[in-house]
Amino acid sequence: MLDGGDEELKDTMRNSKPVKRFIVIDKTVHELYGSKVSQYFDERGVIYKILPLTTTEENKSMELVTKILEEVHHLGIDRRSEPIIALGGGVCLDVVGLAASLYRRRTPYIRVPTTLLSYVDASVGAKTGVNFAGGKNKLGSYVPPVATFLDSSFFQTLPLRQISNGFAEMLKMALMKHLGLFELLEVNGSKLLHAKLQPSKTCSGSEMEDSTAASMRIAIETMLEELAPNLWEDDLDRLVDFGHLISPELEMKVLPALLHGEAVNIDMSFMVYVAQQKGLLTKDEKDRIIQCMLGLELPVWHQECSLALVQKSLRERLKHSAGSVRMPLPTGLGRAEIFHDMIADDVICQAFQKWTEELSSFGNK
Amino acid sequence: MLDGGDEELKDTMRNSKPVKRFIVIDKTVHELYGSKVSQYFDERGVIYKILPLTTTEENKSMELVTKILEEVHHLGIDRRSEPIIALGGGVCLDVVGLAASLYRRRTPYIRVPTTLLSYVDASVGAKTGVNFAGGKNKLGSYVPPVATFLDSSFFQTLPLRQISNGFAEMLKMALMKHLGLFELLEVNGSKLLHAKLQPSKTCSGSEMEDSTAASMRIAIETMLEELAPNLWEDDLDRLVDFGHLISPELEMKVLPALLHGEAVNIDMSFMVYVAQQKGLLTKDEKDRIIQCMLGLELPVWHQECSLALVQKSLRERLKHSAGSVRMPLPTGLGRAEIFHDMIADDVICQAFQKWTEELSSFGNK
Ligand SMILES: NC(=O)c1ccc[n+]([C@@H]2O[C@H](COP(=O)([O-])OP(=O)(O)OC[C@H]3O[C@@H](n4cnc5c(N)ncnc54)[C@H](O)[C@@H]3O)[C@@H](O)[C@H]2O)c1
Ligand SMILES: NC(=O)c1ccc[n+]([C@@H]2O[C@H](COP(=O)([O-])OP(=O)(O)OC[C@H]3O[C@@H](n4cnc5c(N)ncnc54)[C@H](O)[C@@H]3O)[C@@H](O)[C@H]2O)c1
Repeated sequence: MLDGGDEELKDTMRNSKPVKRFIVIDKTVHELYGSKVSQYFDERGVIYKILPLTTTEENKSMELVTKILEEVHHLGIDRRSEPIIALGGGVCLDVVGLAASLYRRRTPYIRVPTTLLSYVDASVGAKTGVNFAGGKNKLGSYVPPVATFLDSSFFQTLPLRQISNGFAEMLKMALMKHLGLFELLEVNGSKLLHAKLQPSKTCSGSEMEDSTAASMRIAIETMLEELAPNLWEDDLDRLVDFGHLISPELEMKVLPALLHGEAVNIDMSFMVYVAQQKGLLTKDEKDRIIQCMLGLELPVWHQECSLALVQKSLRERLKHSAGSVRMPLPTGLGRAEIFHDMIADDVICQAFQKWTEELSSFGNK
Repeated sequence: MLDGGDEELKDTMRNSKPVKRFIVIDKTVHELYGSKVSQYFDERGVIYKILPLTTTEENKSMELVTKILEEVHHLGIDRRSEPIIALGGGVCLDVVGLAASLYRRRTPYIRVPTTLLSYVDASVGAKTGVNFAGGKNKLGSYVPPVATFLDSSFFQTLPLRQISNGFAEMLKMALMKHLGLFELLEVNGSKLLHAKLQPSKTCSGSEMEDSTAASMRIAIETMLEELAPNLWEDDLDRLVDFGHLISPELEMKVLPALLHGEAVNIDMSFMVYVAQQKGLLTKDEKDRIIQCMLGLELPVWHQECSLALVQKSLRERLKHSAGSVRMPLPTGLGRAEIFHDMIADDVICQAFQKWTEELSSFGNK
């Protein structure tokens, strides 16, 4: 990562006008990798400014966007040829993406995800965003980055909880459309988690190595399959919305208690009970999914995810989705469908009751 | 305007779920037309919220966008089917356009221009924007409205100065690509100005009536011709940039002394001298253009438009336009070309000197 090798690039840069780069980097990432980043640009004679920022869900706001914009404006970059670089987790990528899309009505930007969640999810697609008026990602734009650089060696320094968090979005894709990925997570999830998805040094070519690479590849490929034909979300029927119906409300409500992927997982866990209640999943399938979640050390229940909150979220969904609830639900392992009609209230209530009975003991860990 | 007639629409609305509209309206426009707007929506059983706002160049900012967003969020609209309506001048349309493009990553909006300038210019194209860090329209997006409603009867209540202001953008299109429009403005400009571009009640079918309709139609058509193939401004060679190289700096510097079109006109007036100095225009052509500007009661010179400011603006242009100045200049009446090389400093100095000698007596009116 960030190590030499590209002599040709260095040559090009030495011969033409100096290259200028503005880099926004998450503060923790800066502490861990800042000197390497500086070295990278120094060696290439790039004029650069690094802006380390605390980027958390709580300050994912228009104010942070404005702060970035002030610094960008101060440095002065060519709005066509000098992309802004974002280095960090999903919050950092989302905020910088929005700032770039606003500056001079569109300045190119590059995403460098450093968390598993942002690697498999926030790195794909065109969405940028910030929270607003207590609402998750209420403001934003659809402006894709000019490039995304993927480097999983960043995960080495992530706490395990952040790895679990990323697995939630991978599991989402598995549940919606890839039995193979589900089985992979079911069997190897815990091992992959504790190896932080790093290729093992001792047994390259091993089964572990294969599942590491395969799980991330499949997660990104299935995500791309879903997002690419619908980059601007003109089609509101989206499998990728699984886990994202109740979780935005829940995540914002208990902030900072739950991470994004954790809230998504609690939402998915509940929806799996709804699917079983509707006869879409067997008890065995439901149990396997919940076991897989637990193996990935993800929360499957939460005190604050009340029946009232569930019902409110579904009503909101209906209000904002052109009159249809458009609810993706698993219809087997690695298979799903979008349901347009509001789920009957008694189904929701019964699913909720069962969910709480069976899983509340795992709650609020 | 806004008067009944559309019984069919009313019927449709009565029979389906209530329609909800959020309307942002310039404060002055609200004082003049607010009750008519309310009546329009009342008669149609629309649930609506009208937000009157002072929209001026000085408060054309992210804060104003945020204020609108808070109110939109409070009302709660369907982000797909309930467009936000902007009623006012260019500032109002630009600010509301930006707010709509940010809300839930894109909410449809409708432009209803009420000034001549916004009718012929800000109503066309995809640009939204606000000022930032002392820079004009430094933040914004390219998101076109779902519709634009044109109604020139709004001009009746505009002060003459605002009409002149709008003529500047019409003259821009005339100088760049339409000799017919130029001649029309040259001959009838003053009359059209004082009639506020209203179809005359007494002599319908007259020459005046023709020139009123024709001038606005040609201005919009030529603007569309230029903008439509380049909605996202990927091509940086733009005739519509004429008058917009020095004026942003000038307008922001003397705020609120000059209106947008006035600053544009001062820029164009200077550039006409540059064109003559470069041998692109004859003295006679230059004189006819300046006379036309004066006939439209537009300022042709300004104290604060110093040689230093001119030079700084051109340098900035070079910096931000991928290494080429891309300067549109008239090469005859109703004809223009884009010049890529920086204009020689002595040409700029001589043009500036002549411009000041000949026109400073018209300055700072
Ligand atoms: N745009 C999209 O399509 C999209 C998709 C999914 C999620 N998101 C957004 O992403 C956000 C969540 O992203 P996230 O989970 O990456 O959270 P995050 O950005 O808050 O990062 C999590 C934490 O990890 C730290 N960190 C980052 N990289 C590290 C590293 N290599 N080593 C050690 N610590 C590191 C950060 O300092 C931070 O405290 C949410 O706001 C969500 O809305 C966006
Ligand atoms: N988006 C674009 O493509 C584009 C193009 C050109 C200009 N613009 C922007 O438009 C702005 C200038 O627009 P503008 O000239 O309309 O200025 P403006 O919006 O400031 O309006 C001018 C004044 O006229 C008043 N007014 C509006 N309608 C009226 C009416 N019918 N009767 C009486 N008074 C009325 C307003 O209260 C205001 O004081 C600038 O900020 C410029 O950057 C944008």
